[in-house]
Amino acid sequence: MILDTRPIAAKLESKISVEAKDFENRYGIKPSLHSIVIGKDEVANLFANILLQKLTALNMQGEVHRLPEDVPEKEIIKLLKDLSSNNEVHGIIINVPVPNWLNKNVLFSNIAIEKDVDGQNPYNLGMLMLGVEDHAPVTPLAVMRILDEYNIPLSGKNVCIINRTSVVGKPLAMLLLNRDATVSVCHTKTKNLEKLTKASDIIIVAVGKPLFLKEEMVSENSIVIDVGINKYNGKTVGDADFDKLVNKVSAITPVPGGVGRIKTLLIIERTLKNALKLMNSKDNQTV
Amino acid sequence: MILDTRPIAAKLESKISVEAKDFENRYGIKPSLHSIVIGKDEVANLFANILLQKLTALNMQGEVHRLPEDVPEKEIIKLLKDLSSNNEVHGIIINVPVPNWLNKNVLFSNIAIEKDVDGQNPYNLGMLMLGVEDHAPVTPLAVMRILDEYNIPLSGKNVCIINRTSVVGKPLAMLLLNRDATVSVCHTKTKNLEKLTKASDIIIVAVGKPLFLKEEMVSENSIVIDVGINKYNGKTVGDADFDKLVNKVSAITPVPGGVGRIKTLLIIERTLKNALKLMNSKDNQTV
Repeated sequence: MILDTRPIAAKLESKISVEAKDFENRYGIKPSLHSIVIGKDEVANLFANILLQKLTALNMQGEVHRLPEDVPEKEIIKLLKDLSSNNEVHGIIINVPVPNWLNKNVLFSNIAIEKDVDGQNPYNLGMLMLGVEDHAPVTPLAVMRILDEYNIPLSGKNVCIINRTSVVGKPLAMLLLNRDATVSVCHTKTKNLEKLTKASDIIIVAVGKPLFLKEEMVSENSIVIDVGINKYNGKTVGDADFDKLVNKVSAITPVPGGVGRIKTLLIIERTLKNALKLMNSKDNQTV
Repeated sequence: MILDTRPIAAKLESKISVEAKDFENRYGIKPSLHSIVIGKDEVANLFANILLQKLTALNMQGEVHRLPEDVPEKEIIKLLKDLSSNNEVHGIIINVPVPNWLNKNVLFSNIAIEKDVDGQNPYNLGMLMLGVEDHAPVTPLAVMRILDEYNIPLSGKNVCIINRTSVVGKPLAMLLLNRDATVSVCHTKTKNLEKLTKASDIIIVAVGKPLFLKEEMVSENSIVIDVGINKYNGKTVGDADFDKLVNKVSAITPVPGGVGRIKTLLIIERTLKNALKLMNSKDNQTV
């Protein structure tokens, strides 16, 4: 079975579109997301453009701040602080990857916690570890949304995550533990990965390598969530050998049009929620 | 092999004792830890007393704030804020468990990040997820210290953690992932726990049940770190069936005198480090 995310996306889009229109009618401004792209990385730039198009299509507003590769850290911090304190900005995201010499933790710490749409401010990551999911990172939330929409049970299931970053693997482990899954986190140093993936009910792969998850690493009962996005022979593919796996496993997400699609919409939905929350608290102040 | 933590403790104690004396000679005050105990919980009260004794023995100072079971939240928050801004307080810890009706996350958020000796402020937990271990929770750090002192390799090893709290299991998973271990986090809803523990190189158990980790759940190669502390037939025991396991596994920590001993000293060491850092930054200000 292919876990098609188009119906989930369609539902999300129509909800966002209506609520964003209502917002504009009520407050005279559009919910607004600001992306920051540092340097010429193709993925980061492409993703900023995708977000921009999608925002416009859904009655919202986007702005992309494209900064040069060698921008001084203090200039980025100034921008993050300005956006954080600007009442007409409702979401802020730094599109990864950023140049290596930058201290990402310092950047993330300067995004206002209530506008941090990808949940990378340390406070938001810590709250997630304490069980509060309101500002969890969006890629893990997209995975959870797909599992939920397809009613895939999680309690007591063995889940294997192949990724240990703060953007995917670690926060996803927190979300899955909150839902009573048994979680194994794997990575480049893992030995006998095949044994682990084969014994798992759900495999979530995010390694950035085409054809990484092979037929012999899965079983007939496996549910595969493919977070990877790679260019391979001129095509966009995930980390799983989709063509072989689709006939073997119990369920698998496609790439493109799988997790990425939902992630994009969750960033936009979060921006809208932030905007509503900000305006509600203003309404209450003026009463 | 029994992983005796007494030599590790002795080394830590002599280092702390000397440095604390130096600190007092230099600054005219002792490094000072404040514990907060809410209600009559036996474990929380006992631990506060143990800390107090140990602090005194190591040329440091402790104070215990014992608050009634029904203390209003705002009163605890006021105390935490006062301690956080008091220059003669270098470490603050809320001894768990606290009464259920209190929102622990709110309490933790009100401990100054630089005095948060058990690393439960969301900011510190988030920084840990981002790879910064300076203010990680002490029980996980105690486990890591024991593994390190006994030169137990972690890279590529399969580690099974039986605990998913923000005090033990989740932060311990982060620390182990930073060290290239493959980490599985288990709990009450885990199915076939025995299969998972048996296949792991290292088993870390923290469930609060005597005789929980049984002979049939381990192998000859298992290294067992027992974080549990329970009363059983009038004796203090851990979560592992120590008497049976000690003759089977490759290595095991005893209870009492295993992880708990090191945890206590790491709280004290952290307080001393905080005190030195605070005074160093003051020295620099007056230059």
